[in-house]
Order: sequence, then C-alpha cells, then structure tokens
Amino acid sequence: MSILTRRTIRRYSTREVSDELLNELLTQAARTQTMGNLQLYSVIVTRSQQGKERLAPAHFHQPMVTQAPVVLTICADFRRTTEWALQRQAHPGYDNFLSFLNAATDALLYTQTLCCLAEDAGLGLCYLGTTLYQPQPIIEALQLPKLVFPVATITMGWPDEQPPLTDRLPTESFVHSETYHLPTPADIDRYYGPKEALPENQEFVRQNKTATLAQIFTDIRYKQSDNETMSSLLHDALTAQGFL
Amino acid sequence: MSILTRRTIRRYSTREVSDELLNELLTQAARTQTMGNLQLYSVIVTRSQQGKERLAPAHFHQPMVTQAPVVLTICADFRRTTEWALQRQAHPGYDNFLSFLNAATDALLYTQTLCCLAEDAGLGLCYLGTTLYQPQPIIEALQLPKLVFPVATITMGWPDEQPPLTDRLPTESFVHSETYHLPTPADIDRYYGPKEALPENQEFVRQNKTATLAQIFTDIRYKQSDNETMSSLLHDALTAQGFL
Repeated sequence: MSILTRRTIRRYSTREVSDELLNELLTQAARTQTMGNLQLYSVIVTRSQQGKERLAPAHFHQPMVTQAPVVLTICADFRRTTEWALQRQAHPGYDNFLSFLNAATDALLYTQTLCCLAEDAGLGLCYLGTTLYQPQPIIEALQLPKLVFPVATITMGWPDEQPPLTDRLPTESFVHSETYHLPTPADIDRYYGPKEALPENQEFVRQNKTATLAQIFTDIRYKQSDNETMSSLLHDALTAQGFL
Repeated sequence: MSILTRRTIRRYSTREVSDELLNELLTQAARTQTMGNLQLYSVIVTRSQQGKERLAPAHFHQPMVTQAPVVLTICADFRRTTEWALQRQAHPGYDNFLSFLNAATDALLYTQTLCCLAEDAGLGLCYLGTTLYQPQPIIEALQLPKLVFPVATITMGWPDEQPPLTDRLPTESFVHSETYHLPTPADIDRYYGPKEALPENQEFVRQNKTATLAQIFTDIRYKQSDNETMSSLLHDALTAQGFL
C-alpha cells in the first residue's frame, strides 16, 4: 500500500480524473464496514467551477478547492436510511447525538479507505480539516437536507508536486499497553524533541516569532477562543440539521 | 488492496499476533494525515485475559472481545498534545466540542488505515460499534485520563472463518453530483430492493417477526429510545472527560 510514501498533494496537473476512475474508487471504498451495514454516509462530488467557488469561502479560500479537478465532501447521512424506514412502516429515531456520531464514524472510515485507494491509484489528495470549522456555508452550498452533515472534504487530482515526507511522533508516544500511561516530562521531551529540532520547524518558530513550536499551535493556529467560537457554530449547525 | 474481499472476522485461530507485526502496523498507520500533524489519537493494546474481561461488559459481552488475541481501543487524544503545550510555555485550549471532533476524526482515519494494513497482512478484524454506546466503563477499564475518549474498538487475530461477502447499496444511492438530491420513493425501492430481496434478509425478517427489514433496524437493533438514552450517556462521558 502506498501509505508509507504518502504526502499531502496541493498542486495538481491538468490531467483529467475520469468519471470511470472516480466511480470505481467510490464504489470500492464502500466495502468498508459500517454500522449494521447501513452505510450511513454520502459523498457530494463537486466538479463545476461554480460549485468549487461556492465551497471556497468555507475552506478559508485555500487554493486547492478551486484548483483541484475534483472536490469530494463526505457527509454523515441518516437521511437516506430514515427515508427508507418511513417508506417501510418503520419508526426511525436518528435525530440525536449518538446517531450523528455513528454516521460520522461510518463517513470517516469510508473516507480513509477512499484515500488509501485513490493514493494507491496514483492520485494526490489534500484532506481539508476546515469542514468542521464552518459547516453551515458548506451545508448551504451543497443543499444538504436535515440528518446530513459534512464531516470531511478531500481535494483530488493527479499530483504536480512531490513534497518531502513529514515527520511523525515515535510509536511509543501513542501506543499504550493495557492501560493509559500519562507521559512524564522526560517522555514529552523524548516524544517531541525530534520534531522541535527539525530545521523547518525551527524556521517556523522564527517566522512566527514564538518562543516554542507548541505556541504556534496553541496561540496562532488552533487557539482556545477560535475553538470555542467554532464549537458553538458546530453545535448550531448540528441543531439545524436535526442531530441535537 | 484487500478491501474488495474484506469481511468481518469474528473467529480467530490460535496463531499468535506477534508484537513485531502489531507494532509495524501501528507505526505504518501513523502515516495517515492528521490535524496540523499533531496525531490526536492513542491506541490502547489489550492482550491480557484480565484486560479483555474488563472490556467485555462494555461491548455487551460479544465473544470476540475475550476470544481475540488482541483488542485495540483507539481514542481521540488531546491530552498528550496538551501536556506538551503545558511544558512549552503554551496555553492549550482543547477542552471543547470542536477539539473532540478534531481528535475523533484523527483517530478514526488512523483506525481505518490500520484496518486496511492489517487486512492486507492477512489478519482478520471485527470493528465494534459498541464503543460509543457505553464509553464510561471503557474509560474506567483503560484508565483514560481527561481529554482522552474511546471512539473505536477492533478485535484482531488470524482468521478462522471465511464468511460470505455482505451486500452493499448501489453507488448511485450515496454519491451525489454537485448538490444533494433527496431520494424519491422509486429511488428508495431501487436502492433497497435488492437488499430486501436477499434470502438471508427475508429469513432475518421472519425470525424477528417484523413486517419489513427496516423495522428490524428501527424497532429492534437501533431504537429511538436506546439512541436517546445512549446519547445522554455519551454526553455525560464527554463532559467527564473534559470535552464539553
């Protein structure tokens, strides 16, 4: 599997991603296990320039959204299952928080199988974490009905760059035997020291004028105040979509 | 990739899953993209019989939990990152709902890469959706601290069965072009008709004495009252772990 050499691809060649290939990948990824085999997800395929431009603001105008041949928005979806139940004298009750998380789980597992398959086929992908930051404009752009909620966005195309592999934490930092072991200060130094010592991260700290690398994350990129504001937006959007 | 022939495996042979293989898979899966490359997950490996028995009640005593050589509980984890920040004069603010979903996303994408890699290596897996139903006893059994929350459980071993492939909905049922299209009654019949016509599902309806297949899901397996009770337990557990 190509996972060992995967890198995020943000620049794509002009080569087309055919409907045939895309449909094959979308179909194969559906072999992924889901809750009760209900497949609680849906995928919105955006190929039109107009559609990409409608999505762009929700993703902070990251250039991949309008430049990639294909943008995929993967949604937690209890709507289709609910419609089925309603037409079969059944009484669906999926307008709740657990059901959202069940469907989000199905959608995210599907997404990652799709990523693995697409990268195995030579395609380049960028996973946009911004989907959860501003769901409401995505919901509007894609006309998502109640009980459908966007959880992941992937931009996809044939790679036109080959960036270096990025670093990873040592396996011992995230694998625990039998019970969770809180890291000691020495553990933290051992886990994060190599990341902090990378020339690109030292340069990143200089550019951002912070004292430490961690401060770039806590004080600039993923700030408490932003997290709290966006938690509230997320809560409102989940309520509007009927999950809370 | 073995995804095209994957099936859930619930019976395992006595052949050992070596630490070397398990660690290789856990390490390789960490090539999966994560938010800011922070790797907001952790994996608790349960190999001891005592540990499996402690987890079993949370998973409704499904026999795989005590019979599989390895049980993996994958957690959304903002604790390690928070500890790092605190030791680096940074001010972490990840005790909120968005941060939980960000970490859950990292954990679930990691989980699915791990599933694909393990199945490619010939291992058999069962994904336990019960993790979200009763998180509190899992949190206690694994001694998960604040800002760590279990989102997925996998039982793993060498297969001792080869069940048939299960059915899937047609791709057109979950793929939408440009905007979401609500299914018409005719669409629902076309999407779900083949599933309802399967002999095993017709037998399933007979056994459960329901009028339709959908009623098995809505009235027996995933009932509104259960979903609401478990939503409330989930909310309480997220609060206790510091995410709400």
